[in-house]
Amino acid sequence: MTKWVYSFGGGSAEGRAEMKNLLGGKGANLAEMANLGIPVPPGFTITTELCTYYYANGQSYPAELKGQVAEALVAVETIMGAKFGDVVNPLLVSVRSGARASMPGMMDTVLNLGLNDATVEGLAKRSNDDRFAYDSYRRFIQMYSDVVLGVDHHHFEELLEALKEDAGYSLDTELKAADWRKLVGAYKAKVEEQLGRPFPQDPQDQLWGAIGAVFGSWMNQRAITYRRLHEIPADWGTAVNVQAMVFGNMGNDCATGVCFTRDPSTGRNMFYGEYLVNAQGEDVVAGIRTPQYLTKAAREEAHAELPSMEEVMPAVFAELDAVRHTLEKHYTDMQDMEFTVQQSKLWMLQTRTGKRTAEAALKIAVDMCREGLIGKEKAVQRIDPGALDQLLHPTLDPKAKRDVLGRGLPASPGAASGKVVFSADDAEVWAQKGEKVILVRIETSPEDIGGMHVAQGILTTRGGMTSHAAVVARGMGRPCVAGCGELRVDYAAKRFKAGDRIVNEGDVITLDGSTGEVMSGAVPTIQPALTGDFAALMVWVDEIRTMKVRANAETPLDAATARKFGAEGIGLCRTEHMFFDPKRIIAMREMIVASEESGRRTALAKLLPFQRQDFVDLFEIMEGLPVTIRLLDPPLHEFLPNSEDEMNEVARAAGVDLATVKGRTAQLHESNPMLGHRGCRLGITYPEIYEMQAQAIFEAAILLADKGQTVVPEIMVPLVGTKKELDLMKASIDKVAQRVFAEKGKSVPYHVGTMIELPRAALRAGDIAATAEFFSFGTNDLTQTTLGMSRDDSAPFLEVYRQKGIYEHDPFASLDQEGVGEMIQLAAERGRKTRPGIKLGICGEHGGDPASIAFCQTVGLDYVSCSPYRVPIARLAAAQAALGVKASSTA
Amino acid sequence: MTKWVYSFGGGSAEGRAEMKNLLGGKGANLAEMANLGIPVPPGFTITTELCTYYYANGQSYPAELKGQVAEALVAVETIMGAKFGDVVNPLLVSVRSGARASMPGMMDTVLNLGLNDATVEGLAKRSNDDRFAYDSYRRFIQMYSDVVLGVDHHHFEELLEALKEDAGYSLDTELKAADWRKLVGAYKAKVEEQLGRPFPQDPQDQLWGAIGAVFGSWMNQRAITYRRLHEIPADWGTAVNVQAMVFGNMGNDCATGVCFTRDPSTGRNMFYGEYLVNAQGEDVVAGIRTPQYLTKAAREEAHAELPSMEEVMPAVFAELDAVRHTLEKHYTDMQDMEFTVQQSKLWMLQTRTGKRTAEAALKIAVDMCREGLIGKEKAVQRIDPGALDQLLHPTLDPKAKRDVLGRGLPASPGAASGKVVFSADDAEVWAQKGEKVILVRIETSPEDIGGMHVAQGILTTRGGMTSHAAVVARGMGRPCVAGCGELRVDYAAKRFKAGDRIVNEGDVITLDGSTGEVMSGAVPTIQPALTGDFAALMVWVDEIRTMKVRANAETPLDAATARKFGAEGIGLCRTEHMFFDPKRIIAMREMIVASEESGRRTALAKLLPFQRQDFVDLFEIMEGLPVTIRLLDPPLHEFLPNSEDEMNEVARAAGVDLATVKGRTAQLHESNPMLGHRGCRLGITYPEIYEMQAQAIFEAAILLADKGQTVVPEIMVPLVGTKKELDLMKASIDKVAQRVFAEKGKSVPYHVGTMIELPRAALRAGDIAATAEFFSFGTNDLTQTTLGMSRDDSAPFLEVYRQKGIYEHDPFASLDQEGVGEMIQLAAERGRKTRPGIKLGICGEHGGDPASIAFCQTVGLDYVSCSPYRVPIARLAAAQAALGVKASSTA
Repeated sequence: MTKWVYSFGGGSAEGRAEMKNLLGGKGANLAEMANLGIPVPPGFTITTELCTYYYANGQSYPAELKGQVAEALVAVETIMGAKFGDVVNPLLVSVRSGARASMPGMMDTVLNLGLNDATVEGLAKRSNDDRFAYDSYRRFIQMYSDVVLGVDHHHFEELLEALKEDAGYSLDTELKAADWRKLVGAYKAKVEEQLGRPFPQDPQDQLWGAIGAVFGSWMNQRAITYRRLHEIPADWGTAVNVQAMVFGNMGNDCATGVCFTRDPSTGRNMFYGEYLVNAQGEDVVAGIRTPQYLTKAAREEAHAELPSMEEVMPAVFAELDAVRHTLEKHYTDMQDMEFTVQQSKLWMLQTRTGKRTAEAALKIAVDMCREGLIGKEKAVQRIDPGALDQLLHPTLDPKAKRDVLGRGLPASPGAASGKVVFSADDAEVWAQKGEKVILVRIETSPEDIGGMHVAQGILTTRGGMTSHAAVVARGMGRPCVAGCGELRVDYAAKRFKAGDRIVNEGDVITLDGSTGEVMSGAVPTIQPALTGDFAALMVWVDEIRTMKVRANAETPLDAATARKFGAEGIGLCRTEHMFFDPKRIIAMREMIVASEESGRRTALAKLLPFQRQDFVDLFEIMEGLPVTIRLLDPPLHEFLPNSEDEMNEVARAAGVDLATVKGRTAQLHESNPMLGHRGCRLGITYPEIYEMQAQAIFEAAILLADKGQTVVPEIMVPLVGTKKELDLMKASIDKVAQRVFAEKGKSVPYHVGTMIELPRAALRAGDIAATAEFFSFGTNDLTQTTLGMSRDDSAPFLEVYRQKGIYEHDPFASLDQEGVGEMIQLAAERGRKTRPGIKLGICGEHGGDPASIAFCQTVGLDYVSCSPYRVPIARLAAAQAALGVKASSTA
Repeated sequence: MTKWVYSFGGGSAEGRAEMKNLLGGKGANLAEMANLGIPVPPGFTITTELCTYYYANGQSYPAELKGQVAEALVAVETIMGAKFGDVVNPLLVSVRSGARASMPGMMDTVLNLGLNDATVEGLAKRSNDDRFAYDSYRRFIQMYSDVVLGVDHHHFEELLEALKEDAGYSLDTELKAADWRKLVGAYKAKVEEQLGRPFPQDPQDQLWGAIGAVFGSWMNQRAITYRRLHEIPADWGTAVNVQAMVFGNMGNDCATGVCFTRDPSTGRNMFYGEYLVNAQGEDVVAGIRTPQYLTKAAREEAHAELPSMEEVMPAVFAELDAVRHTLEKHYTDMQDMEFTVQQSKLWMLQTRTGKRTAEAALKIAVDMCREGLIGKEKAVQRIDPGALDQLLHPTLDPKAKRDVLGRGLPASPGAASGKVVFSADDAEVWAQKGEKVILVRIETSPEDIGGMHVAQGILTTRGGMTSHAAVVARGMGRPCVAGCGELRVDYAAKRFKAGDRIVNEGDVITLDGSTGEVMSGAVPTIQPALTGDFAALMVWVDEIRTMKVRANAETPLDAATARKFGAEGIGLCRTEHMFFDPKRIIAMREMIVASEESGRRTALAKLLPFQRQDFVDLFEIMEGLPVTIRLLDPPLHEFLPNSEDEMNEVARAAGVDLATVKGRTAQLHESNPMLGHRGCRLGITYPEIYEMQAQAIFEAAILLADKGQTVVPEIMVPLVGTKKELDLMKASIDKVAQRVFAEKGKSVPYHVGTMIELPRAALRAGDIAATAEFFSFGTNDLTQTTLGMSRDDSAPFLEVYRQKGIYEHDPFASLDQEGVGEMIQLAAERGRKTRPGIKLGICGEHGGDPASIAFCQTVGLDYVSCSPYRVPIARLAAAQAALGVKASSTA
């Protein structure tokens, strides 16, 4: 018989942490905590396999489940000394979902299950607190009705507000037991009115209803969206955790809280958390009451008034602090824990690996490695290369003037500016149009995930550091200021007030997620420091990785930035970018409108000194490192002007009339420039252009060689589709080299290779490698041609394609491994067969994308090349890819 | 020791016809003729292997060659009873090139070799004709100096003209022996003046000079160009034929001529040829004297005055006619022969398979098959599918008014209109600009081949049916009128006169190559008849081929034409062509500018009846045959108007304002429409479009099914790159089918498949075939994406690419087998692995290209689909491909 139910509690458990796939993250950790002797309320976990069974069998359960649940429930009753549904000493339980991975989209937790009109009296008597018992009962009815029965919570909130208004109360705490009892009656009537049947009184019905709701929530839209965003397969399923209730709201010796073993925002190794006296768990995360700090130090640092738990309940705090150390040492990672104190007894409700900011992830990984908790490889694996992006981007310039509108909690670090929008839907619509937006909400809920994803930053006026907004924003790496109560949001008018100032939808604001400041307008930024923990991690990264990382750069500034970020050469210098400079563009245009080769050569001669200086600068900055220079690639019409004034200027410079310039412009017009007269097709038809570029490269290299520098230019011919093209271009480059070397009486080594950016080039890589000394995969164009999809024109349908699951990712951001990936694989295999040592790299946008980098590792590329700011990300991703490869090859 | 030299003559030979690769076409045939007992002047052949040796060894000969040549020369001397270099009885020889395939570009033949100041006296005495001897000597000096020594022939022509002017002669025949002798002196002085050394007097030096010149000519530009055009590898090499001279110019009992065993223009089985009394061979082909007919019948038919050979030399003619029958029976193909009559003795100089017009090729192949000379398979292999094109295209309407400017020889049949140009270079320049040109020349030479290739037709004012222009034009399938002496060409003024009418460069004329008429302006044409020999051949073709041939058609006219030409279904019905009709385009545009799905559905409902009728018409015409319908493919902006008037009309029809129409137009603009929002991307984003099309297809099919017709529509989804796209589209089509079938209470079978036109689709064909019931290779787009080359934009560089040998053919005309071909092969393999019986076809332009069709056969496609006019060509090419495959698989 399949075992569907695993018990835990009372110092032992049937499960273990390793059984996460079966028991879900929460269930496995509860079992593990129980085994560690941590005080966990007893309970049991219904496995994820049951979820799969449930959906595979028309949403029905196996026959044996009832018996297993009943048996496990008896075990809980025994430990707690109470009985489920007993009117004298009722056992209450919580029912929670728990998938393998934490899913903030699934909040369908039901507490206080087991209460009914009879057991509520038993609870009142046992606790000697009618008020608490009826408050619990009304909470249970509201939560259960909302989550399980589908009666929206606003019905209950309205009834509560109406009662408070009638009674003249302003706070919930003013309500008496009789008020709650009255409200329970009103709630039950509302449920019956909405559903046409009464609220279920049988605790068994309640239990099975809640279990069914958890499985049902696995397939709700929020969960599906979250899984899509995080690539979680639907057949993982969720487990259900049924656990004895413990109460943080039985009086002032009770409390409930959330804590992290280290600061999830900064990573500092200090106990971090929030709690509320006399409250249930959801009060902390829902942001209705502003929680208190856990430690005295944190409270003082924040200049908060309400006392810390350390001050209020020192003994229980000490016990909690011991649990903190036990758990972190056991899991060797920062833990996110929930606890409840019931009448001064500590209960740990759950522990899990805590979400953290990129900054915190870095600090925690480096610290833990230094503390000996984890090794370097583990430390390197702990950092999400995508999240690292935050640390590499500019932060607000501390010297810049800040027009502060308000100050909230520094919930997720980083700076962001953008236009204000007031709903997640608006955020998505505006972002689609290319606007940078800041999502401003009173508080956020799981329905807002999509909007939070596209926003530059998130601002809420309610809720704490562990509020939904804060947790999700940190997970996404979005700057967030939470609980900024000074601001008053008016959703209907689409504006918020900061004192007497009004900020309307569309106005630009800036958030500083590291200080909690909200500022008017866009505030200037500064470059990040790349020292300390970052530098330490990067040393380990570089020890581990096997692929080199280069940068795509052509300006001295970009090249210098790239080198600062650890680039090991330039993988792509796009020479065309060098011709747009105002001092050069005229000569370039003169070249283009020339009708004869001689005219083109005259114009090119004017460009030569500029090009040579470009290469001198690059070679100097990248001294000792390889520099791959791509010869002119775009179609010539891209350099021609549109305005008649500029055309006149060109005509004057070239000594032709305006009609000639216009005629040439019209002649060069192309229907599909991406597939047009560009790349080496220019080199074939106008050999003088590449000759000038080659001359500039060789002259520059010799200038530096004369200064004793080592320069090995790699000359790259773009858009090659046949070996013959490369043969012709290489012959021309070699000829120029011989001429320059003869003139200068000196020679330098150099390599000639090609982009592989056309499907034909990938297929013919075997031929081409006979001539090419290196291949660089130009995955932007290779994606465009392999998919037959223009990057510039695909936005209108690509979003629909992603929604319909045709492409999981934007194939221009993350390599289409099945299609473009096979092209690369084929080309690498065929190229190597002809020339075993051929150097292989990638220089498309994908060179900075971690998933694509992992693919490059599997193909065995020698290097990836990406934009300067992504170099550290690529280094980290390459290290992780190397570890991944090791792991799979030893598996 | 390698045998480099093969002797022939005197009733036997060392070589055979099968040794063509070694001895060249001429050498092998001379050997074969000698073995057949045909009177061939004795001689020897230096093998093609020597040519290869020569170029592989720094243009030097093997040591043993001298001895072998000397020995063979002795054999010739023995047979002819004369001695090379002997002053009393000198043996003279001809030296000719002879490659495996006939190469009209190589005219480097030297006659009368062996003459010098001493032997010329011997020749004069032996022939008792000083005039003949010195005429021969001066011819030899001119020819040898031109061909071997590189002294241009105009030097000699000027000396001749000067002498004639001094003496007051108008014709060469007026020159006396003394005049020729004097000219010989002047020629020799000119050679010494030009070269700084005297004309070689040693016959051995002459011989080796000529042999070297033949090998040298293998690498001249003309030969290289010809080989490129005809795909002849350089390493085939040429042989050298050294043969005893016989003389057609020793008096009026001498003659020389060229003849064909059947009429090379019409194919009629009648002896056909031309001869000149008292002349050497080159006089006939050079067009300097207008030759006489061979047979009395031909002379009478042409109303010619000069007597035929049959009348002048009946006995020799009878002997020649016997040789004709012997050779044709032996070679089982129409022969092109050269002969000389020396003092009433017939000598056959060479025989080879004769070039012929498409019309003649067809008639000869069918006749020979009927005569039992060859089998059906051979007959089918004899017709060049490309040349068949001529027979399928319109000819001049006999009822049309013809403004005849003049009448020449009907040298190559077919009709052509175009603008007059007067040089081959101009022809190439104008053709490059897309102009249709007629090349008008006094006479043509091998330098003109390029211009003849791009011209629609060729007109010469001098030369006969076997002149250079006539022979080359027939080979190329270009209409040609030759020797139209009524016209006077003025190259300098770029015009010609016809009587008092002047035709300038750029004026349009029409040629009728079947009648010899030259007409002013463009003359209307009529459709070709597809009966008689053509129909007979096509029966054999269809028996042999294994691939089906379908047509690309969407209009009833095209479909009917296709069926008439033997199409076995429609392989590509491009539905978008159906929306451009003025009655429909407004609704189409209304659909495009609609902002909501409901608006699009309203507009689509208006298009539905039109589409349904389109399919009803097609299904009726193609009854019983498959019809593949491609759903909407082009980007929507292609349907939008440019003019404000039309935009206003759209705005009115759609009930929106002009700004909306303009806005939508701007919104739909794409940078690279080829890679844009088109194909199934439209179906994914606007499912209602394909739904309407599917509905129209199913409703039309049921209408015909109701009439008892069999209709099996094949619905084709364009631009698929992933299985998921096809899954979604197939689900949508199936849903419409179920709805229509339910409404009509009847169902019809149908198939859903996809275009394979993206590299990704080819790679993922294994997945896609799980859903697709058929693949149709859209090689136009597959070429564009695989090569990264826009068909619309590639003209400016593609011509340079062809010149530089990067692509041998225009890859949009003939499939790039190495690149696009591998894509097709991969997709076919992967598709069949998933779905073994998957139907595979090709529907790009390549479906009508014989080389591409041969490739399709090797991949094992089920059918090719091409434009209606190319269907017969495709049928023939498919039959030849089937024979080719058989041959290689039994080899």
